[in-house]
Amino acid sequence: MITYNHIELAHNRISKDIHLTPILTSESINNDTESNLFFKCENFQKTGSFKIRGATNAILQLSKKQVTKGIVTTSSGNHGAAVSYSARKLETTASIVMPNNTPKNKIQNVERYGGKIIFCEPNINSREDTLKHLVEKTGSSVIHPYNDEKIIAGQGTAAKELIEEVPDLDAIICPVSGGGLLSGTLIAAKNLNPNIKVYGAEPKNADDAYRSFKAGYIIADDAPVTVADGLKVPLKDLTWHFVSKYVEDILIATEQEIIDAMKLIWQRMKIVIEPSSAVPLATILKNKNTFSGKRVGVIITGGNVDLDKLPWVNS
Amino acid sequence: MITYNHIELAHNRISKDIHLTPILTSESINNDTESNLFFKCENFQKTGSFKIRGATNAILQLSKKQVTKGIVTTSSGNHGAAVSYSARKLETTASIVMPNNTPKNKIQNVERYGGKIIFCEPNINSREDTLKHLVEKTGSSVIHPYNDEKIIAGQGTAAKELIEEVPDLDAIICPVSGGGLLSGTLIAAKNLNPNIKVYGAEPKNADDAYRSFKAGYIIADDAPVTVADGLKVPLKDLTWHFVSKYVEDILIATEQEIIDAMKLIWQRMKIVIEPSSAVPLATILKNKNTFSGKRVGVIITGGNVDLDKLPWVNS
Repeated sequence: MITYNHIELAHNRISKDIHLTPILTSESINNDTESNLFFKCENFQKTGSFKIRGATNAILQLSKKQVTKGIVTTSSGNHGAAVSYSARKLETTASIVMPNNTPKNKIQNVERYGGKIIFCEPNINSREDTLKHLVEKTGSSVIHPYNDEKIIAGQGTAAKELIEEVPDLDAIICPVSGGGLLSGTLIAAKNLNPNIKVYGAEPKNADDAYRSFKAGYIIADDAPVTVADGLKVPLKDLTWHFVSKYVEDILIATEQEIIDAMKLIWQRMKIVIEPSSAVPLATILKNKNTFSGKRVGVIITGGNVDLDKLPWVNS
Repeated sequence: MITYNHIELAHNRISKDIHLTPILTSESINNDTESNLFFKCENFQKTGSFKIRGATNAILQLSKKQVTKGIVTTSSGNHGAAVSYSARKLETTASIVMPNNTPKNKIQNVERYGGKIIFCEPNINSREDTLKHLVEKTGSSVIHPYNDEKIIAGQGTAAKELIEEVPDLDAIICPVSGGGLLSGTLIAAKNLNPNIKVYGAEPKNADDAYRSFKAGYIIADDAPVTVADGLKVPLKDLTWHFVSKYVEDILIATEQEIIDAMKLIWQRMKIVIEPSSAVPLATILKNKNTFSGKRVGVIITGGNVDLDKLPWVNS
């Protein structure tokens, strides 16, 4: 099973290929939330999201022969861009299975890094069938977006950097979709300081991780509809192991609360973040008592947003 | 006449009240421009623009008696917010004369810091008459938005910080409106390294500084119409002195070029900047040969933008 040592090894492996992203604070948002928030800004990361961490860690561990045969994956956008970027660096091909309702900017982002897109229907069966056929046809290696030890270890490096720079945190909160980032965050946080409480934040419209956590077994929704386009996939066995055991709680926010939190961060902090990245602040604003007076690390997961279709315009 | 020593004194005076803002770079925008750009991010500055530098420097030099009688000024928004913020810190009042076509978010920004707004028509006469009556009525001190030695010295601290962090610049470019920032930048740059070429960047729709520079005397337009809402006022005697003598050139960009450059910075750098701040990059993209292979400091002046009315939406 994956341990903190894997995160340390991953960090050594990928650090020359990623940015050490800044941690920003906002006096005015601290006043609103009555807490001290430390935003780890992965929207400034290469390819515009934290996904480059896991993708790079996994791809750098493929054999030369595997690299030659190309890489395939499924993605709502950011993992696909990260895989495409890493594949191009190794001079091989990346094929990305993406739902046909993926936002335009995320499609363009994959294309910008030379990834080949294969569209599927926006549900689990179509996604997995399309991937299976692609692997059979090409013999390419699959880099799963989250249910993979190497991906989890890579994503855990974000929390490692956050805690190394702000060691005395009371809590860390990050969005949860498939649980790769949350699992890596749990492993890093619990090893560096077992007192740090780790929370997942999820859209109410795609709250399968929340319901799984409460039920004690994995519940998978098919094709949830939410503005947080990066948070639509379910937990799987590997991520469920960590989330079910070590998460303090999973908090949920409505669509309007997510949009309001996103706009608040743009207005006050002058940074561009995507809707998925706003879910943690939305839940903090909703659960003030839980975080009041606390020092809280917030992982801003990405900044790949369609500027022509902002959720508060014409809504 | 104001010298570099005034900028040093200003920096000592205000540094506890302002942020040392970060300097960001973008590999992808460097590729587009074929140059090395260093963005001094005053959009992350207190009150969301560089204007807090000059306003704080001027207001901290008022006598106790002057402070008691309050402060008045004219502003398109950012200077007004900065003056309001500084006035509130000194527990006095700020009255801001603003054109009645000021974007909503800039009005809200002034109100947020407790400034009292007096609207005028969006032309020079109405602005100056309204201010004059206000001073006669209240006996308050006028903090001019740019034609003031203390303001110029304060604004020059941004370029001072930029050059201290990136000493080997070939050029610096900043937007020009009344010329306060450009004058301060010229004084700082020419004293720290006389080889640095300093450029002004201006909207074609409000190119009075450009035409003044070419003609050799001040030309003032009344009520120009441009998306760059912070760049509508003309040069005055004090700023003209520095701009006419030391500027390398003034470059201009169309409305569409400004909007495209603004969107490019949002997309690639994931930062929120206002239209005025995009004018320098717009002119760099348009004058590639001038900046090709050069190390160029770009002052991002502010990030106060109406998120409900983005210039590329419905345009």
